[in-house]
Amino acid sequence: MSDDRLQQQIRFILEIDALKGVLRRSYLLRVDRPENSAEHSWHVAIMAVLLAEHANEPVDVSRVVRMLLVHDIVEVDAGDTYVYDAAGAAAKAEREARAAERLFGMLPEDQGREFRALWEELEAGHTAEARFAAALDRLMPVLHNVHTAGRSWREHGITADRVIARNATISDGSEVLWEYARSLIEGAVAKGHLASAGP
Amino acid sequence: MSDDRLQQQIRFILEIDALKGVLRRSYLLRVDRPENSAEHSWHVAIMAVLLAEHANEPVDVSRVVRMLLVHDIVEVDAGDTYVYDAAGAAAKAEREARAAERLFGMLPEDQGREFRALWEELEAGHTAEARFAAALDRLMPVLHNVHTAGRSWREHGITADRVIARNATISDGSEVLWEYARSLIEGAVAKGHLASAGP
Repeated sequence: MSDDRLQQQIRFILEIDALKGVLRRSYLLRVDRPENSAEHSWHVAIMAVLLAEHANEPVDVSRVVRMLLVHDIVEVDAGDTYVYDAAGAAAKAEREARAAERLFGMLPEDQGREFRALWEELEAGHTAEARFAAALDRLMPVLHNVHTAGRSWREHGITADRVIARNATISDGSEVLWEYARSLIEGAVAKGHLASAGP
Repeated sequence: MSDDRLQQQIRFILEIDALKGVLRRSYLLRVDRPENSAEHSWHVAIMAVLLAEHANEPVDVSRVVRMLLVHDIVEVDAGDTYVYDAAGAAAKAEREARAAERLFGMLPEDQGREFRALWEELEAGHTAEARFAAALDRLMPVLHNVHTAGRSWREHGITADRVIARNATISDGSEVLWEYARSLIEGAVAKGHLASAGP
């Protein structure tokens, strides 16, 4: 083991501390502030461990966990793109590709390659692990919204048709979780926490 | 799969959102606030993936990652106990045992047992995985202190002899990382960020 290798690893570990300052649109349940991408990554990784039995196909849970631990690191440079922000989404791919280049490029070559592969796998969604990881990444903001009386949905004028359209891919990873999410979305509409359709 | 099982899992997932509001003594590097235990758990889990090659013994990295994802969940009820707080440490075991009982008890029985076993394994430190996980959990606050000019050490009047005594067990998990941590601690003393000994 060369000292250089440990130095590279530590520099990367220090660099990604910044993910704790990247704010998402979701609000926390017990603390009155938006969620950051680092604590979100922890939460979805725990979800993977607990909810793997609901995946459509058998998944390698450890790979799903790694994918979710790594999936938002590019936001250190690229920031969080709101899931309902179509304009932001257009530029997102390029912004995140540059971020991946710089950030994963800080690591020893083999580990940089591994992290990039995990990130690309989730983005591409061609494996059972990626589809399940993406499903959890979508489900969490629905849970946060539903349990804060639709706070972030209402703040951004999001309607149920958009929530359903944007999150229907949860079913690619887990029919069970999509059925559950749908029932939550319907419940939010019934309670007046989510407008049923746009004007 | 019973609906009850999914309901239990989701209730637990919502409950541990509170970990994002549990503050530690470490300060972040890019944002001016203390770290919370959820984002800390993400960070040490990533460290496990990257630094496993430095463990004294071969470790099952996935188990180390799970252990670290779960290790602070008891703080939802028990709060964070500062590593240099001897008085707090005395009551910590009892407080955390009650927390584990309530929180892991919310899960389906098999998963509650699994999470409790992961938490107990790290606390007991009898496996290579536990010793390596504990080493990372100790190393991170040293890194945070060293890269914030000893902010938290200085705030609490912590001296180098205590830092060394409290963190020497890093060597049980990784001699390489303890050697590295020691050089950082010596550097902090040399720079005047850490007092060398108590009055």
